[in-house]
Amino acid sequence: MENIREVFGLVGDALPILNPKKKKFTVAYLGPKGTFSEQAARRFFSNQKNIVYAEYLTIQDVFRAVEARKADYGVVPVENSIEGSVNLTLDLLYQKNLKITGEITERIEHSLIVNPLTKKSDIKIIVSHPQAIAQCRNFLAKNFPRVRFIEVESTALAVKKLKTLKKAAAIGSEYAAKIYGMKILARNIGDVKNNLTRFFILSKKDSKPTGNDKTSLMFSLKHEPGALFKFLKPFAEKNINLTKIESRPSKVKPWEYVFLMEFEGHRLDKKCLDVLKEARKLCETLKVLGSYPKQT
Amino acid sequence: MENIREVFGLVGDALPILNPKKKKFTVAYLGPKGTFSEQAARRFFSNQKNIVYAEYLTIQDVFRAVEARKADYGVVPVENSIEGSVNLTLDLLYQKNLKITGEITERIEHSLIVNPLTKKSDIKIIVSHPQAIAQCRNFLAKNFPRVRFIEVESTALAVKKLKTLKKAAAIGSEYAAKIYGMKILARNIGDVKNNLTRFFILSKKDSKPTGNDKTSLMFSLKHEPGALFKFLKPFAEKNINLTKIESRPSKVKPWEYVFLMEFEGHRLDKKCLDVLKEARKLCETLKVLGSYPKQT
Repeated sequence: MENIREVFGLVGDALPILNPKKKKFTVAYLGPKGTFSEQAARRFFSNQKNIVYAEYLTIQDVFRAVEARKADYGVVPVENSIEGSVNLTLDLLYQKNLKITGEITERIEHSLIVNPLTKKSDIKIIVSHPQAIAQCRNFLAKNFPRVRFIEVESTALAVKKLKTLKKAAAIGSEYAAKIYGMKILARNIGDVKNNLTRFFILSKKDSKPTGNDKTSLMFSLKHEPGALFKFLKPFAEKNINLTKIESRPSKVKPWEYVFLMEFEGHRLDKKCLDVLKEARKLCETLKVLGSYPKQT
Repeated sequence: MENIREVFGLVGDALPILNPKKKKFTVAYLGPKGTFSEQAARRFFSNQKNIVYAEYLTIQDVFRAVEARKADYGVVPVENSIEGSVNLTLDLLYQKNLKITGEITERIEHSLIVNPLTKKSDIKIIVSHPQAIAQCRNFLAKNFPRVRFIEVESTALAVKKLKTLKKAAAIGSEYAAKIYGMKILARNIGDVKNNLTRFFILSKKDSKPTGNDKTSLMFSLKHEPGALFKFLKPFAEKNINLTKIESRPSKVKPWEYVFLMEFEGHRLDKKCLDVLKEARKLCETLKVLGSYPKQT
């Protein structure tokens, strides 16, 4: 599970998504250095050579880098096991034309980090990514009931900012604390211990079938009674296992929704092709975001 | 639609949820003064007498006030037509034992607000609720590419804080600007113009059937193939219209989900009772959050 060879093991050769003729590959990740996205990127590509890692400061910028071919791959967070989906990633997947070519999951352990010159009693401000703040609600309510929160784009950026902030603490990873030379005041401060974040590996193309794949799609339904039930029917009849379904506002009309769904199988498998053809009839729009080796 | 008489018109008498023997009613809302929650609360109860409005500074505190009978009703945001659900509200609905007794929708128009002493060129910080910041992404990227964002619990609190912040702007409502004596620099700065937020009215009890109701429930499914399809089957067979379905992390086990679903009908309607009985068999847990008059 933790090893790229296992993820891609079923095809029995090198990463199917990499082009062997190309000498160097650029992987864009949601930076700055020290993010969980960087950790995920480095683990996903850990046994690949000639990888250049490039930090981008927003999720939009990672998408843009891959779209503009400045990067071959982009690594962005898509879902956290406590907080749920990263809405911006889902919205961009729907709007843009990139494919999901892989997935990887990282364990998130939050630490309370300060500048080496800062004591606990100095802390007036806590800086972090909003999901990290949300994930440490109990710890923060108990220990820092009166602080002000500053929201930044990533936990790593929060730790980086401590260099010039003496009355602040950041919530971030040990990895980030180490990179930026900061001090850890408390470890493992998250409310829920089993905290995982799932990342998508984006590319211009998705992956070839391996026999153990997953497919992600987004769709909006026609307005008729039982539309979702009818949409799910061919999947149920063919015993295709749904691993996720959720809805996002369509942004076209209030209270209309776009669904994100994931199922086991590759979009090119005969069974999946048939089911998608059937399901598409019930949809206003249907977009396959990609098929990729399932992380078991 | 915008009038409480229309919302409750079908029962032809006073608000069914209010107890006429009680002299005063307390309505807890997500404060401070000037929030969209306050606006929603005042409109929902606009033709009721003897209402005392009480501000609470977090969504948890509104839930607690109603649970502890400090307030008869609580008004909290549940969903925005652009950003999607307010995760904390959904999580608390699942964890706590309050009922949804009504719904109301407010139009959200964001303004850029400053202290009367502040000029546009002074602005180094933008303060607001994270969803408001997210909803003005394009405007902010264009006009303020380099500002720092401070996340606070509500747009009204952001405007209130301007009193002592001369290098900051807040994103908030005209109503909040007026209440706190602040200056509007730009109106209607949201990226999407059709921006609505839906609020739930919470109470110890839900509402009586009116003939035009909606029911909200949360459930988790047993682990078997086609479970969601089977769950939806009785609803489809009885032509019960689903108005919403979405999923949230269960927080018990990573990548297991709890679904929030809403359908037309009252939980005490014969048809709905039958369907719920059938659907319950497929569930690990099923919790009816309440039935309430549908806002048409």
